[in-house]
Amino acid sequence: RQIRTARKAEKINGKIDPESPKVVTKEDLKEGDKRVYCRCWLSGTFPLCDGAHAKHNEATGDNVGPLIVGVKKSG
Amino acid sequence: RQIRTARKAEKINGKIDPESPKVVTKEDLKEGDKRVYCRCWLSGTFPLCDGAHAKHNEATGDNVGPLIVGVKKSG
Ligand code: FES
Ligand code: FES
Repeated sequence: RQIRTARKAEKINGKIDPESPKVVTKEDLKEGDKRVYCRCWLSGTFPLCDGAHAKHNEATGDNVGPLIVGVKKSG
Repeated sequence: RQIRTARKAEKINGKIDPESPKVVTKEDLKEGDKRVYCRCWLSGTFPLCDGAHAKHNEATGDNVGPLIVGVKKSG
């Protein structure tokens, strides 16, 4: 079983919208949409995931990944 | 203007699903739904945001916040 250390009290966002006091993203979706959203703060297409989490996980032993949101068609 | 240091090569997830090789969350929404999703990996209600980002931002000088997803009613 892998030993995992607790998260340090460090910033996790070093690049996205640095002048903003708090980066809150608002998205409006509609039926049939599917989006893959970044939760690692390293994506070049933020707020969407571009796969950058993989390199971060490999480099640090982390296990973060995206949020996938789909909207079903009700028809 | 505030000086911001680059992100260090450290894990950002110290608590969510530690045994998972990669935490990918899949959500199915429908018309009229609105959700606030955590991107700081500290929420007690992960994948949803419980406001824990605020304490993290204050402690570290970070500026992270949630993703808010809404689905419009087409009717
Ligand atoms: S690039 Fe950040 S979660 Fe995929
Ligand atoms: S608790 Fe993590 S973004 Fe709000």
